[in-house]
Amino acid sequence: MKLGDGVEQAIHSVSMLAGLSDGGVLSAAALAEFHGVSTSYLLKHLQALSGAGIVNTVPGPKGGYKLAKATEEISLLDIVLAVEGPEPAFRCSEIRQRGPNRLPGRYFTKPCQISAAMLKAERVYRAELAKTSIADIVAQLAADDDGGIAARGCAFLEINERKAAR
Amino acid sequence: MKLGDGVEQAIHSVSMLAGLSDGGVLSAAALAEFHGVSTSYLLKHLQALSGAGIVNTVPGPKGGYKLAKATEEISLLDIVLAVEGPEPAFRCSEIRQRGPNRLPGRYFTKPCQISAAMLKAERVYRAELAKTSIADIVAQLAADDDGGIAARGCAFLEINERKAAR
Repeated sequence: MKLGDGVEQAIHSVSMLAGLSDGGVLSAAALAEFHGVSTSYLLKHLQALSGAGIVNTVPGPKGGYKLAKATEEISLLDIVLAVEGPEPAFRCSEIRQRGPNRLPGRYFTKPCQISAAMLKAERVYRAELAKTSIADIVAQLAADDDGGIAARGCAFLEINERKAAR
Repeated sequence: MKLGDGVEQAIHSVSMLAGLSDGGVLSAAALAEFHGVSTSYLLKHLQALSGAGIVNTVPGPKGGYKLAKATEEISLLDIVLAVEGPEPAFRCSEIRQRGPNRLPGRYFTKPCQISAAMLKAERVYRAELAKTSIADIVAQLAADDDGGIAARGCAFLEINERKAAR
């Protein structure tokens, strides 16, 4: 089972955007610099987050990204589904219906037992991811911080936050 | 999040091997034919199952595959990990430590909060997969069957099962 690198980048980026002041935005280049990742690759994930209604894009030379909703309303599941797509990890290709001496269609009206069990585990996984919000992540980070992490983030935002955006 | 096709093929193959009589084996070609999949591709997954101690390989011209343990002792998790590898789906590349103005190492002695939350969800996923055994899958299949599915499987095993193996 694999998740792309984009998930880590997207969750960190959303957490960073949580630190913006009202009306502030961050460019994709700034987000990429802060996380030491490729801007073009991150842009793809920011577009996915935008498509899912997690971030808003402010266009123009002073534009950038900001959160589209409160951090309490953005779960890790929202971000994973935005970046990875909504399809389940297990994709049943109905191999039970292939091969020699096939059975009539009435045997395949219910989902395959294997598919059902795999999808049940995925529902549990998703439910667990849905329990953690970006607000939780930011609060946990703050609880573990003696001030150094916040100071670094604030200094970076001080330099890179664009305030001219609506 | 993605699981390869091999997971579906491997779980179906293990379920099919559960129907063998004592001392019987099935060739990779027979398993591939029954499931309508490529033999060479299936072989790779059978080797992974063998490496994980889920199936035994009987060598020789009358050789093939059989289960290495009771169906109650083979969980869906065992098969997923055998085929997909043991690594977690979420791989933290510690992007929190990259970028400008890095913090001292003492800030990174605990796992990143994001990684911890992602891995917690994976533990829940794995625990759920561990709850379902191949015995459960076979029992569920039998419960939904009016005899047609069993008859098809038995007819195929009748023709393809190799009995000469130890």
